[in-house]
Amino acid sequence: MERYEDSKLYKIRHSMAHVMAQAVLEVFPDAKIAIGPPIEDGFYYDFELPRPINENDLNRIRNLMRKIIEGKHPFVRKVVSADEARDIFADQPYKIELIDGLDAGGVDEYGNKIKDENMVITTYTQDKFEDLCRGPHVEHTGELNPDAFSINFKEPAGAYWRGDENNQMLTRIYGTAWETSTELEEYLELLEEAKKRDHRKIGQELGLFTFSQMVGKGLPLWKPKGAKLRDKLERFLRDEQVKRGYEPVVTPHIGNIQLYETSGHYPYYADSQYSPIDVDGELYMLKPMNCPHHIQIYSSEMRSYRDLPVRLMEFGTVYRYEQSGELSGLTRVRGFTVDDAHLFVTPDQLLEEFIGVVKLTQLVFKSLGMTDFRARVGIRDPESDKYIGDDTMWEEAASAIIQACNELGLQHEVVEGEAAFYGPKLDFIFRDVLKREWQLGTVQVDYSLPERFELEYTGADNQPHRPIMIHRAPFGSLERFIGILTEHYFGAFPMWLAPVQIAVLPVSNKVQEEAEALVQKLKAEGFEVELHDRGSLGKRIREAREMRIPYQAIIGPRDVENGTVSVRLRDDTELDPMPVEDFIKLARRVNDEKLVDLVPEQI
Amino acid sequence: MERYEDSKLYKIRHSMAHVMAQAVLEVFPDAKIAIGPPIEDGFYYDFELPRPINENDLNRIRNLMRKIIEGKHPFVRKVVSADEARDIFADQPYKIELIDGLDAGGVDEYGNKIKDENMVITTYTQDKFEDLCRGPHVEHTGELNPDAFSINFKEPAGAYWRGDENNQMLTRIYGTAWETSTELEEYLELLEEAKKRDHRKIGQELGLFTFSQMVGKGLPLWKPKGAKLRDKLERFLRDEQVKRGYEPVVTPHIGNIQLYETSGHYPYYADSQYSPIDVDGELYMLKPMNCPHHIQIYSSEMRSYRDLPVRLMEFGTVYRYEQSGELSGLTRVRGFTVDDAHLFVTPDQLLEEFIGVVKLTQLVFKSLGMTDFRARVGIRDPESDKYIGDDTMWEEAASAIIQACNELGLQHEVVEGEAAFYGPKLDFIFRDVLKREWQLGTVQVDYSLPERFELEYTGADNQPHRPIMIHRAPFGSLERFIGILTEHYFGAFPMWLAPVQIAVLPVSNKVQEEAEALVQKLKAEGFEVELHDRGSLGKRIREAREMRIPYQAIIGPRDVENGTVSVRLRDDTELDPMPVEDFIKLARRVNDEKLVDLVPEQI
Repeated sequence: MERYEDSKLYKIRHSMAHVMAQAVLEVFPDAKIAIGPPIEDGFYYDFELPRPINENDLNRIRNLMRKIIEGKHPFVRKVVSADEARDIFADQPYKIELIDGLDAGGVDEYGNKIKDENMVITTYTQDKFEDLCRGPHVEHTGELNPDAFSINFKEPAGAYWRGDENNQMLTRIYGTAWETSTELEEYLELLEEAKKRDHRKIGQELGLFTFSQMVGKGLPLWKPKGAKLRDKLERFLRDEQVKRGYEPVVTPHIGNIQLYETSGHYPYYADSQYSPIDVDGELYMLKPMNCPHHIQIYSSEMRSYRDLPVRLMEFGTVYRYEQSGELSGLTRVRGFTVDDAHLFVTPDQLLEEFIGVVKLTQLVFKSLGMTDFRARVGIRDPESDKYIGDDTMWEEAASAIIQACNELGLQHEVVEGEAAFYGPKLDFIFRDVLKREWQLGTVQVDYSLPERFELEYTGADNQPHRPIMIHRAPFGSLERFIGILTEHYFGAFPMWLAPVQIAVLPVSNKVQEEAEALVQKLKAEGFEVELHDRGSLGKRIREAREMRIPYQAIIGPRDVENGTVSVRLRDDTELDPMPVEDFIKLARRVNDEKLVDLVPEQI
Repeated sequence: MERYEDSKLYKIRHSMAHVMAQAVLEVFPDAKIAIGPPIEDGFYYDFELPRPINENDLNRIRNLMRKIIEGKHPFVRKVVSADEARDIFADQPYKIELIDGLDAGGVDEYGNKIKDENMVITTYTQDKFEDLCRGPHVEHTGELNPDAFSINFKEPAGAYWRGDENNQMLTRIYGTAWETSTELEEYLELLEEAKKRDHRKIGQELGLFTFSQMVGKGLPLWKPKGAKLRDKLERFLRDEQVKRGYEPVVTPHIGNIQLYETSGHYPYYADSQYSPIDVDGELYMLKPMNCPHHIQIYSSEMRSYRDLPVRLMEFGTVYRYEQSGELSGLTRVRGFTVDDAHLFVTPDQLLEEFIGVVKLTQLVFKSLGMTDFRARVGIRDPESDKYIGDDTMWEEAASAIIQACNELGLQHEVVEGEAAFYGPKLDFIFRDVLKREWQLGTVQVDYSLPERFELEYTGADNQPHRPIMIHRAPFGSLERFIGILTEHYFGAFPMWLAPVQIAVLPVSNKVQEEAEALVQKLKAEGFEVELHDRGSLGKRIREAREMRIPYQAIIGPRDVENGTVSVRLRDDTELDPMPVEDFIKLARRVNDEKLVDLVPEQI
C-alpha cells in the first residue's frame, strides 16, 4: 500500500497550503505565517492576523487561490544556508524560530523532533510566495484543481504556536483538496454525514451522557441510559473473558509515586499525568494505567509455573492529562475506563495466549456487528538500539504475534519500528460505516516491567524464572469505543446493547391498562422496556424512532382482542401483527444471539 | 436503655483509669500524665515515660493496682480555681495545657470542644493520686474488682498528644474492667475470638485482598477471589435496586473544586479530603462523596413532577484522607466504594420512598443472613438553631422516617440531636455473631444541597419547585461491609456469595478424568468450582475446609460407578452419597434462594 506521504494527494495538499498562504498574505499583507502541513484528508496553515478573519476574507482568499492555480506557477526548490534563510524570512518571526531550530539540528521545518541531524534548509517558491519547506510539491499550480478544494475557518478554531498555551494564539485555516470535484463532493458529504452522526449530538439526544462545567472538562458523566449501555458492554466483555480463564480484580485509582518511579512511568510520562497529591509528605498520582497495580497483585503471592498464565482483568478507570483544546466528547477525555488485562505467561505460553487474545477480540467484534477491521503488527526497527531484551525474545514474540494473526485469518500488516521499546505489539483498527478508520486498543508484549518489578515464578526446575507480560486492551477506552459505536450505528445500537429495547405504544387511552400489562410482561421476560403514552400515536412513534428504540410494540383494541401486537422497527418497517408470544420469541432470539438485524432470516 | 455514660461500668472504668495512673506514677515517678478516659469496653491512659515500657513494668503496675483497690480509698471531689489547679499540677505539663483550655472555656478536661462555656474545674483524689477530672467515679476503690480487670500495652500502640502528629508520641496503656471475673473472662474470650476472626488475617488466607506498600496505605487491592465476592454483592444490590426503579449512573473520581465549594464540602471538610490537583490552573479534588456528581446528572435535563422520584445509584469509589494511624484493614481505608444512591423526590413522596429504602435494606440484610440489626433515627436537637429548613419540613421528614420504621417493624430508637444540620437521618446498626455492634450505612434527608445547587422540577401547577434529596447508602462502604461480613461469618460466607462454591476432590488419580468432567459439568451449571487434586485426600479435604468452600464434592470409583458424589460440608458434616443431579439441585436451591444453611430443611 502506498504511503500517504508518497502519494499525489499529499503533494496536492501540501502545495495547496502554500497557495493558501500566498492568498492570505495578499489579503493581509502584515500577516505572520507559521506552519502549514498537509494532514489526513487536507491541510491547514496557521497565521497571526491583524484582526479576526471573516467570511468575506475567506471568499477573497478562495478567489485568489483559484487565480494562483490558474497561473500555472512552477514550485521552485532552492537550497539555502541558515543565514540566507534568515534574510529571506526577516519579517517572519515564526519562520526565524523554525530556521534557528533547523540550524541547531534535530528538528524539521515544522519544529518537530526528527532523527536526521544534518538536514539541508530548502525553500519552495511559487509565483511571488516563498516558504521554508522540505517539499514535496506538484510541478506547478496548474496541477491543482480549482474546483476540488475547500477552505474554512470556524470559531473557536485556532492553535497556540507550537501547541504551548503560553504562546500566541494563531488563526488556523483548514482546507481540503482532491484531484476531482467529485472526490471533493463525496468528501464533503461524508463530513456532513459525520456531523449528523457526531456522538456528542446523539449522546445528548439519547440521554447517554453529559458533561458539567462544575465537574470539569473531559470528564463524562454517564446518565442512566448510557450507564446501562456501558454496563451491558462491560458485562459481555467480562463474561467472555471469565469463560476464558481471566480473573477480574479491583484496584484503587491512585498509587504512591514509588509505584510509577519503579514502573518508569514517572517522570517519563509526567506530561500526560495529573500533578501529584501530597499525603503526609508522600506523593500519590491518579493512575494513568492499571499495569503497576496488577503487578502488585501478581507479586502478592508465590507463583509456580503451574499457576501460569495468570490473567488479571479490570475495567480500570484511568486519568490522563490532555490539553483542554484536545478534548472532544468521548473520543478524547481526561478520564476513561480501559478494558484492561495483564497476562503473566511463560515464554512457552506466548503463542497460545496471543491466539486466545486475538480470538476473543474477533468474537467481540462480530458480536458488535463490526465486520470491517484489521490489525497492525508493530515490530522493531532493525537499525535502532532503543529496544530492551535479547534478539531471540523479540523474534519469538514477533513470530508468535504474526503466527496468531495467520492462524486466525486476521488481516494485518507488519510495520517495522512500530514496536514499543519494551516489546512488539498488535493494534486493532476498525473501519466504520463511513469508511473512517479508528485505531482501537492494543496487545503488547512486555519484557521490561517484569524486569523492573523483579517478577518471578518457580519453574518445573524449581528455579526462579521471569514471566513475560502481555498488556491487552483490544478496545482501549470504553468511552472512546462507545463514541465510535454511536457514530457507526448512528445511535441505532444492536438490540442487545440498546438501553431501551422495546417501546410499548398504546394507540389510545382505551388500551392503556393492556399496554401497561404488556410492559410488565416484557420486563418480566428481561427486556428493557419503556411505555410511550404521551401525545398522539404519531408523536409516540416519532419519539420512539428518534430514541432509536429497536422495536415499537403498538397495541390497539384489535390487538387486545386477538392477543397480538403490531411491531414497527426504528427504520419504520412495519411487521404484520403477530401473537405477543411470537414477538417475545423474535426479540429473545435477536437479543440472545446478539444479532444486528432486527428481523433475522429464519435459520 | 441506660446510656453507657450513666452506667456503673462507666464509673468503674473511669475509676480504674485513675488507679492505673497512680500505679504508673509509682513505677515511673517522672512520668508525665496526659489523659485517661473510659472508652467502649474499657479505658486507657496516655503517659510520657522516661523509657519504653516492658512486660515486667506492666506486672508491677497490675500488682500495685490490686493493692490500691484493696486499700478501699475513697474518690474525693474538689472544686478548684484555675490557679489552684495549676499549682497542684505544676509538674505535669499536659495537665497545665488542659487547665489553660478549661480556663479559656469551651473545652473539657480532655481538651475536647464542648458547649458548656463556664465549667467549674474539679479534681478527684484517691489515696495519694489527684487527677484533673469531672468524674463520675465509684465511691471508693473497694468497689473495683481486683480480679475483673486487665491492662496491656502492645507495640506500636501509642498516640500523639491531642492526636496531632507534630506533637509528642505518648505511651497508651489500654485496660478493661468489669464487675465480675466471669464477665472479664467472657470479654477476653470474645477478644480472642475476634482476633481469630480478624478479617485482615482471613482475607489474606482466603486470597480476598492485599495491600501493597508501593500502592500506598489504606488502599486495598482486590485479588480475584475477593473481586468475585465483591462483584456478587454488587450485582445483587444493583439488581434489587434496578427492580425498584433505581437507575445506575457512572461518574468520574475527580471533580473541579467549584463543585465542592458549591456543595459546601470544601473547605469545611478539607481535613478529610486529599489535597487538590492543579490542572491548567484549575483545582480538582478526588471525590470524597458522590452526591455533587449525581446532582449534575439530575440537573442536566428539565425535570417534571411526573419524572420524580429520580433515583440515581452508583457503586461510587470515593477517597478520603485518614491519618495513617487510623487505618485498619478494610474497616478504615482511604479509598472505598459506597453503595450510593440519591433520590430526588417531591415532599409528597418522602414517606413512600423512605419505606422503599427501609424495605430494600431489610431484604438485603435477610439475604445475607444478618438477622440482628436495628436502626437509630437522628432528629433535631430542639434547643439548637444550627439546622436549616423550616419546622414543618423537619417534622414531616422525621415523622416519615419513624412511620416507615413502624410500618415495617424495624426496631429503632429516636435520638435527639443526632440529625445532620441539613436533615434528619436513619442509621443502620448490625450486631454480629460476637455481639459486637457495627454502624453501617445511613439514609439522610437533605434540604440543603437542592438549595445550594438550585435544583428544580416543574410541578403540576407548572411552577418551579425544589425537590428534596435522600442520600442513601445502607451498607456504607463495600470494603468495610465485606470486612464485617468476613468476621461475622469467620470467612464462611453464604453459598451464594462464596468466591468458590464447590471443591471437587477426586479420592485418587484413578478418577482424575471423571473429577475433571464433574468440574466442567458444575461450571456449566453456573457454579464457581475448583478442582483440588494435589496431595493426599486428607490434604485436599483440609485445604477445601480452610478455604471455607461450602461444598466438597468427593468422587471415588464407587461414585463413578453409581453416578453419585459424596458431599462434605466445610464444617466437616458428611452427607450420604447422592446422585450428582440431586447434589446440583441442592446446590442450586441454596444458591438461588440465598440460603445460609447449606443443607436446608425440605419445604
